[in-house]
Order: sequence, then structure tokens, then C-alpha cells
Amino acid sequence: MSEKRLVLLGATGSIGKSTLDIVRALAGKFKICGLSTHRRISDLVSLVREFKPEAVTVSDAMAFKEAQSALFGLGVKVFGGEEGLCQLASLGGADRIVNAIVGSAGIRPTFAAVEAGHSVVIANKEALVAAGPLILELARKRQVDILPIDSEHSAIWQCLQGEAASSVRTIWLTTSGGPVLDVPIEELEKVSPEMALAHPTWRMGPKITIDSATLMNKGLEVIEAHRLFAVAPEQIRVIVHRQSVVHSLVEFCDGSFKAQLSKPDMRLPILYALGYPERLEATLVPTALDGIGALTFETVPEEKFPALGLAYRALQKGGTASAALSAADEVAVAGFLEGRISFPQISQTIAAVLDAWPDEPLDSLERVLEADKRARQRAAEEIRKRKALRDRPVIENAL
Amino acid sequence: MSEKRLVLLGATGSIGKSTLDIVRALAGKFKICGLSTHRRISDLVSLVREFKPEAVTVSDAMAFKEAQSALFGLGVKVFGGEEGLCQLASLGGADRIVNAIVGSAGIRPTFAAVEAGHSVVIANKEALVAAGPLILELARKRQVDILPIDSEHSAIWQCLQGEAASSVRTIWLTTSGGPVLDVPIEELEKVSPEMALAHPTWRMGPKITIDSATLMNKGLEVIEAHRLFAVAPEQIRVIVHRQSVVHSLVEFCDGSFKAQLSKPDMRLPILYALGYPERLEATLVPTALDGIGALTFETVPEEKFPALGLAYRALQKGGTASAALSAADEVAVAGFLEGRISFPQISQTIAAVLDAWPDEPLDSLERVLEADKRARQRAAEEIRKRKALRDRPVIENAL
Repeated sequence: MSEKRLVLLGATGSIGKSTLDIVRALAGKFKICGLSTHRRISDLVSLVREFKPEAVTVSDAMAFKEAQSALFGLGVKVFGGEEGLCQLASLGGADRIVNAIVGSAGIRPTFAAVEAGHSVVIANKEALVAAGPLILELARKRQVDILPIDSEHSAIWQCLQGEAASSVRTIWLTTSGGPVLDVPIEELEKVSPEMALAHPTWRMGPKITIDSATLMNKGLEVIEAHRLFAVAPEQIRVIVHRQSVVHSLVEFCDGSFKAQLSKPDMRLPILYALGYPERLEATLVPTALDGIGALTFETVPEEKFPALGLAYRALQKGGTASAALSAADEVAVAGFLEGRISFPQISQTIAAVLDAWPDEPLDSLERVLEADKRARQRAAEEIRKRKALRDRPVIENAL
Repeated sequence: MSEKRLVLLGATGSIGKSTLDIVRALAGKFKICGLSTHRRISDLVSLVREFKPEAVTVSDAMAFKEAQSALFGLGVKVFGGEEGLCQLASLGGADRIVNAIVGSAGIRPTFAAVEAGHSVVIANKEALVAAGPLILELARKRQVDILPIDSEHSAIWQCLQGEAASSVRTIWLTTSGGPVLDVPIEELEKVSPEMALAHPTWRMGPKITIDSATLMNKGLEVIEAHRLFAVAPEQIRVIVHRQSVVHSLVEFCDGSFKAQLSKPDMRLPILYALGYPERLEATLVPTALDGIGALTFETVPEEKFPALGLAYRALQKGGTASAALSAADEVAVAGFLEGRISFPQISQTIAAVLDAWPDEPLDSLERVLEADKRARQRAAEEIRKRKALRDRPVIENAL
């Protein structure tokens, strides 16, 4: 494989760091030509010195000013804001854009990358969930690929190699069950941010870790799988697999299953997407069978995880409902991390937004972004209502 | 898929019956145009009435005569002996020949089928083990496929779909461990044919069940995998997986694994080979994840299973050594089932034949068949020696 030129959006986050680990480990395979951070300037300066990219973007407006002086003299173009992310995503001469931005800030840059004719290695769930059909249609027109790096979607994608799409019976997304799987349903009210952030098998950023606790993460993956692999929602099921070794399975129409396995390490799915269609020789991760214990599979206790059902409901609703789901979730998770709502109220907040969501078509990026904004406002209102209710008993207790 | 015309060699054995089950279940997909049995005449007569093939073969000479009268008036051509198997294997108008013959009697018909330009769905291990390189070379020349239906090779084949051969790091063949896995090594001497025939997960014929107890079955599969997938012997490893749900795994050069899973049922790999490259819609087997317990993987206690090491030794020796291994095993297993040698003496008999085996090239079918014959004689001698030694203590005990 000749050297691939990469632009890495979200270079200082969890997926960004894993991507750079791979670039370091596989010398001569990749060249970093662009990097972005939201506001981790000192990390960015180190990365610029190490990888010598052509251009960088700092998406936070305040940090952008700081970055301009911090990067002065290093011979690198510095873009700022969301516009800067789009400029970086459409950088000339790039082979693949890695979109590791967290949240709906990743939507517009994905469009920009595809519009510019770049294939996108995508970790950003929100782009696919909120705007998937538009992005995939544009990618078809521009003849570029949307390459997933979620471990689950990578697993499915790998299992589907050489198989006809029509031969898929069911896609089985695995979930470790996250940190609250064994918490009794009546105690979910007491789950603190600290408990929910203690994921049993994966080390990830805070937003995705909370989403893994509510299983909204899995819900978003159901939507993504529906978009990426063109299978009906009822053909996508979720199963608890605590060990996070089997990253997902495909059941075929003849009754045979294929699964993809590895130790849980995000570098493997990233590596697969970076190298695709070639598998690159690497020894980043110890072999999956080394010291492997028992692998178990259990049905999901759905009553404990209403967020999962909300995702199917959003898919059924269609239009911008998935965009609303994803945006409302972002706000609700932030509300939970700030201690403003309880753990069960994350799903309740999203459900309230979704219940009142109007039917409207998914026909343009503008519509998606407007829906995203509106869903955030609605979620914020719901959180305020809940917080007000929650604050009341304090007065009663004081009597 | 248009109707495929099948010739089924070994129709009355375990694999043959499973194949016919599939043909019955998938109406309109397959037409049976030829059937063979060794000597189960009444079974054959029923099958002729049911499937109305053009031709049948009865390979046992005595039974052939009986068959001619039993089948008289049914409008079917009746061939006899090994020659008859070859005639059936080269029947004009067949799309695929299913070779479900047990033992080295399956070698010559495989050649005949390929020579006649037929793809072969192959359950017969001996043909691939003893004469694999010759058969695969001929298949390349005739542009036909050799399609495995061992559950393990089918699994590997399925996992390799859409993958480059060069990206394989290791092929992991799974074994349930068979019925003597948990017998302490010092008690192997006492393993009776009844014990060895009680396989924990698979229902199969007696020869292959005993081979599963010694793990010679797995050794032969190592040789087959080396032939079929062109991977070096040191890239093929065996791992104990007691549940027989994961039928084998492929580890790729990037550290990722793919596995194929299903409830243990031979109809699935047979169906895959019959339909290949299409996966045929079927509900023969309950879904693998239904009531699935824990899946475990353990290293093979090699000291208990010397037969496995013998297979690697035969591969290393090259030439006709694998043919000798396979033939000696057939004789040794028969000796064990007849109570003439003990369970550990199966491997000892084969080892003795292999130790004294000369270096000779694998250059013709005649050479393979001659080696097969010679190895059988040598194995029979070794059994006589062992039996003589074993019978001696009886006299001492009588003192």
C-alpha cells in the first residue's frame, strides 16, 4: 500500500489518540496532513511538532486565537471554528478524512469531506444518525466511501465482506451491557455520574461512556447499522456480551453466523478502516484467544434500558426524528454529568422530546441542523422542568 | 439459483443422509441424478423410489449382484464396484458431485469427478489428505472447485470470503476435544470403543468418531486446511472449544479474528457448499444464539493426543507420508473397534508406520494408491505385533 494521506478531525480525543498511535506504529503507511482539536492547544502544538501537518483547525473560537500565537512560526496553516473544520475536511490531496469529532459538531465537516470527494473514516455517530441518508446519497454521487470505525460496525462490515447484502437475516450488535447492567431497576435513580463513567471493558470519552450506560449508544448504533448496511430495523438486534471480545455478529439466511473478535481495543477497527480494502500487518493488540475466558451472550433487560427502544422509535418515525434523538441525548447526558437530572431522566428527557417531535422530511443538511438545534432547546426545557421538580422536595424536607 | 443436479456418493451414510435432508427441505433447488451405497441395498431402493436418479452405484461386489435384482424395473442404471463409483462421479450433466464416501475408497472417484469437469463437494478427508495436491492441481486445470463440507473447513472458507489469502496470520481449527478429553492420561489405556464412540457434541459415523477421540480427525483437518487454503502448517493451530458452536476461526495479520458459528449440525456446511456462491434461505437449524451458554476456548493437552502431532509430522515429511498416515489410521481405528488394540495403540500403530515411511514424491494417483495399500499392510503388521504382546499376559495371569 502506498502512503495514505490523512486528515484527522478530533485529534486530541480518545479516537484521535488511537488513530495517531496507529500512524506512529505503522511507519511509512500514513502521512498526517491535517489535525483538529476543539481547544486542547498544548496537545495540538506537540502533535504539530511531531507530525508536521499542512494545516490544523481549532474549533473553539477562544482557543483559536490562542492557537494562532502558540503555532506561530511552525509553518502550519491554522483554521478556526466550524468553518475551519470544513476547510480541513476538504483539504486538497487528502486520501481519507478521519472524523473523530464527538457530537453533532461532526455533521457539517462530514458533508464537506464528501462534497470535496474524500472518503470518510467515521467515528462520529451523530453524522450518520442525524443525516445518514443524505451523507450516504452524496457519497454515492461522489463515489467515495463512508468507512465505520465503531467496533460493532467494523465487525459487521468485516463479516459482510464477500457476502451478498440479500443473504443477511439478522445483524446482532453486541453490548457489554455497560456499568449499570447489574444495578437493580429500582436503584437506577441512584446511579451517579462516577458510577456510570466506570465502563467495564472499554476506555472511551465521557459522552459515549454515559451513552453506553443508558444503552443509547447501542440505540444510535442500531440506527447507524440501518443506514450503513441497508437492513431493516427489525433485522437489527442487540445482545449482551459482557466480555467485549465478539464485536458483533451477522446471521445469514441459511442459519450460519459470522462474528468478528478481538481484545477490546479501538485501534483495530480504526486500522481496518484506514487500510481498507487491505488488511495491514500489525501487532498492536495481543491475540484474542490468549487467556480468553468464557464468552457469554444474554438477552437485553429492555425494561432497564428504555433508551434502546427510543432509537427504534426514532427510526420508525423517520425524517428528522433520529437527529432529534441524537441531539436530545447530547443535552441530556450533559445534564446528567452536571448533576441536574438523574440517570433515568436521561431517557425520560429524550422520550419527551421524541414524543412531541413533528413529522418532517429529512431533505437537507439545513433541515438536519435546524432539527438538531430545536431538539437541544426542547431537551434543555425538559431538563429545567425535571430539575425544578427535583429541587422542590428539598424545601419539603426542610419543614 | 436454477436447479442444481447432484450426484451423491455415499448416500446411505451420515453425511449422505444429511445431504438428502437438505434436498428434501429445499424443494426445487436440487435434483439428485446419481446415488451410491456400499451395501445398504434396501436403503438404496427406497432412495431410488423417492429421488428417481438416472444411475446408482453399489460399491460392494456381493451387494452389487443383489442390487441388480432389487432395482430391476425401476428404470435406473446400476453400476458396481470402485469402477462404478468412478462412472457415477463422471456422470454427464451433473453440476456437483458430493463425495461422502468414508475412507480411501473416496480417492479415485474424486479424481474421476474432477477429470470429468465436475466440481466436488467433498466430505471425504482421505482424498484431500492423501492426494490433495494432485486433486487441487487437476481442479485448477479443469477449472472446477473443490468445496469442503467439514464444519471446520467450511467455517474457514466462509471467514475467508472477501479476504486476501496473504492477510491470514493463523487458522484456528476448533475441536470439542472429543469423548476422552477429560480422561486422565494414565487411564487412556482403559478407553473402550463404547466410550470413544460417545461423542459429546456431534453425531457422526464410527470411523470419524474414533478419529475425534484420538484427535487424528483434527490432525487430518490440519492437513486438509494446509491443502485447501494454501497456508503453512505452522500457521494452522488447534484449540479446544467444547461447545462446537464456533466451528473455526481465522486470525488476520492485523490482529482481528473472524469466526463462523452455528449449532452443531452438518446440514449447514453441506448447504453452504451445495449453494455456493449463493447462501440459500433455510431454517434447518435453530439460531446459534438461542439458549447459547458460555463459549470456552482451551489449549489442547497435546501429551494426551499424540495423533495430532503425527499429522504435523506427516506434513513435514511430505510426499506420500500423509497418505500413509491416513491409511494407517483407518486400519488402526478398525483394529481398535474390533478390540484388537487399545486406545493409545491407535496412535502408536500410526507412529510406527510413519517412522519407517520412506521419502517418496507425491507424483501420481497410482503412487498414492500404492502408498495407501502399503501403509495398510504395515499398519496391520503393527497391530498383529501389538495384539501378540497384549495376548501374552493372559498366559502369565493364568499361572
